[in-house]
Amino acid sequence: MSRQRLSKIVMSFFALVVAGLLAAPIAEAGGVKMTFYGNQHFRFVSPGGTVILINPWIKGNKDATIGIDFYKKGEVDLILATSGHGDDQGNAVEIAARTGATIFTVAELGRWMQNEIEKYGGSKKQVYRGSIGGRYKIGDVTVQLIPSQHGSGIRAPKGVSAPLYGGPASGYLLSFENGPRILMAGSSALTMDFQLFGMRYKPDIAMLPMLGRFMMHPDDAAFAAKLLMTGNPNLKTVIPQHFRIKGRQGWMGTPEQFEAEVKKLGLPLKVLTPEIGKEITLGG
Amino acid sequence: MSRQRLSKIVMSFFALVVAGLLAAPIAEAGGVKMTFYGNQHFRFVSPGGTVILINPWIKGNKDATIGIDFYKKGEVDLILATSGHGDDQGNAVEIAARTGATIFTVAELGRWMQNEIEKYGGSKKQVYRGSIGGRYKIGDVTVQLIPSQHGSGIRAPKGVSAPLYGGPASGYLLSFENGPRILMAGSSALTMDFQLFGMRYKPDIAMLPMLGRFMMHPDDAAFAAKLLMTGNPNLKTVIPQHFRIKGRQGWMGTPEQFEAEVKKLGLPLKVLTPEIGKEITLGG
Amino acid sequence: MSRQRLSKIVMSFFALVVAGLLAAPIAEAGGVKMTFYGNQHFRFVSPGGTVILINPWIKGNKDATIGIDFYKKGEVDLILATSGHGDDQGNAVEIAARTGATIFTVAELGRWMQNEIEKYGGSKKQVYRGSIGGRYKIGDVTVQLIPSQHGSGIRAPKGVSAPLYGGPASGYLLSFENGPRILMAGSSALTMDFQLFGMRYKPDIAMLPMLGRFMMHPDDAAFAAKLLMTGNPNLKTVIPQHFRIKGRQGWMGTPEQFEAEVKKLGLPLKVLTPEIGKEITLGG
Repeated sequence: MSRQRLSKIVMSFFALVVAGLLAAPIAEAGGVKMTFYGNQHFRFVSPGGTVILINPWIKGNKDATIGIDFYKKGEVDLILATSGHGDDQGNAVEIAARTGATIFTVAELGRWMQNEIEKYGGSKKQVYRGSIGGRYKIGDVTVQLIPSQHGSGIRAPKGVSAPLYGGPASGYLLSFENGPRILMAGSSALTMDFQLFGMRYKPDIAMLPMLGRFMMHPDDAAFAAKLLMTGNPNLKTVIPQHFRIKGRQGWMGTPEQFEAEVKKLGLPLKVLTPEIGKEITLGG
Repeated sequence: MSRQRLSKIVMSFFALVVAGLLAAPIAEAGGVKMTFYGNQHFRFVSPGGTVILINPWIKGNKDATIGIDFYKKGEVDLILATSGHGDDQGNAVEIAARTGATIFTVAELGRWMQNEIEKYGGSKKQVYRGSIGGRYKIGDVTVQLIPSQHGSGIRAPKGVSAPLYGGPASGYLLSFENGPRILMAGSSALTMDFQLFGMRYKPDIAMLPMLGRFMMHPDDAAFAAKLLMTGNPNLKTVIPQHFRIKGRQGWMGTPEQFEAEVKKLGLPLKVLTPEIGKEITLGG
Repeated sequence: MSRQRLSKIVMSFFALVVAGLLAAPIAEAGGVKMTFYGNQHFRFVSPGGTVILINPWIKGNKDATIGIDFYKKGEVDLILATSGHGDDQGNAVEIAARTGATIFTVAELGRWMQNEIEKYGGSKKQVYRGSIGGRYKIGDVTVQLIPSQHGSGIRAPKGVSAPLYGGPASGYLLSFENGPRILMAGSSALTMDFQLFGMRYKPDIAMLPMLGRFMMHPDDAAFAAKLLMTGNPNLKTVIPQHFRIKGRQGWMGTPEQFEAEVKKLGLPLKVLTPEIGKEITLGG
């Protein structure tokens, strides 16, 4: 091998390393970092440093220990929104406008968001519209929209007597390279698709809503976990979501109830209840 | 035990009895009373006297042998509405306003109802909004919203070119204390969730739509009954619903066709066809 | 038998033959003729000559080798539309108005179409509204609306910030007398109902969306084919649909990818990729 050729190879190698560093500026070793801010507001950082928010509800969310300004320009890559409800999509549009992040959601809610985002100084192009079944790849993460049995009305403008149509509600499947596959079930009711999700997508972790009234109660959520084990040896951990600490009302299900129901069914699953504002590592 | 303490216990006991009597002023022994007024308009009285209406369509319903004024102040506790369609929700809002009953339905349809009910002199607070999966307990009955494959458009106001969005259509699961568990499937199409409903909720009685065109035809409704038997030894009775006697048109399925289809599948189920205006007792 | 009576019988026989010819003016022997015009635009001619269009998208469809004027008065019997999306319903309303065809779709989208069709000189009566589960019989074909996990927003009028509500999206089951039973899955995501469709309706042919992003990607579409084989010995052929030739973008799935995924699952199915504008015969 000539010195010139060797030098070229070494240079290419360094170029690759540099490119790799640029692609993953906040790279974290070992697993996915997750922080919970109440209800369904979750922040994920992938092994490669991709930052993803789900349903980032802050304004009016008593459990959100951060303000909108916590999310700074360039520090969020992707925002997911499971329905048009105020506590689901939360402040997704405003945070996308601030940070420059991409939003990935269904076509109908996405259309409304495209109209909204310009009010906050963002661009329509930031909203990547898909529909149930569709995927979006960003950095080291592939996200897929999955069915959810829930409504998706958007708060009606003045003088309109019913909520606007946000399309079908959704869940998300997050597949992290060198990390776990996480199923986020949105605000779904119990439905047979949980069995399919197990058989077909074999998630390692399932995030299940258990507040009741507007979604599964803790016992149905535990049954969803059981269905998710169908043909799925990977499922080891279930994370209760869509619950509140501050301002909790009597009708609201608790993570403790959910854990008791999982035990009652005898499921060999770890129930991982997230604490507000505390970063934990999944599948690290 | 001191006489004073004994007296206290006796008093408490009487207080409980009195409270119980107040809670169940129209108490009926043995089972749930059901009366059918055509289409999907059903009136239930629980063993404890809780009065529940489903889809109380009167105005324009040729089979309704009663008028709106049949339902008097304080005589209805709960009203359920499976979709925003005129023949489904029927006169739910007007009857709630008249009687003071609570309406339990999905968030989107419920929001529209909250805007409507004040026109009839009712209060927004009468509408208890949930979403699919959610439960509401009243007296001796727990009601749960379950998935339904159907539309839920609300009649458009003048100048609007499409129906308003009523959220997802629903069915209801009615669990009566000291009585049967009844699954009311709304106006659903055939879907795998009927299998889940059997496995998970094990209803004793299923009320299945079989009009066709806008929902299951009689043969699909019989197949839904079959799916509901999955892992469910309780199901003994199926009740055809969403059919008409007066003003029936050629395309409309009949209870007789439904019964024939249930027989064709060899299902060991009693087909109980309700008669207009005749009160019957279920699971008494 | 008198000569007069014989003559009468012969005349009646000829009358029947003539009536038969009139009823089936484009009668074709042996099977269903199908022509593909890109995306989900399909034209079917039944054995008895019934002409059915699905999602006839022409304006803006780069793969449509025909113009709106291809469809002439009296030459289309039925038009099906699986959602309110512009590339799904396409030019259904305009073509119905031109040809006099009946449209069969869900109540909500149908209501909007009834308002639109008069703008093109058509009549509200041409829109036969149903909902999921409902059937419509025309000539020698019975069509049934089946569930689909997809959105159905209709393009918003000026000044409205979200799409209008088109009701639930749908698929269609087409049962041809003396021909195959074809399941057209619309733009659905993967859902357990594909298993039910196999068990219950036992289609011979399934048309599966595989574009990705707004619906199943090719691998999920292949899995849907697998589910459709559940309890269904009839399924022999799968047809990829909702794909493009001209103007295809990077994210769009291809029929080749779909075929590779069907092979990867080892399914004993023929993948029949339709060519633009080429008439083929199904189940002839």
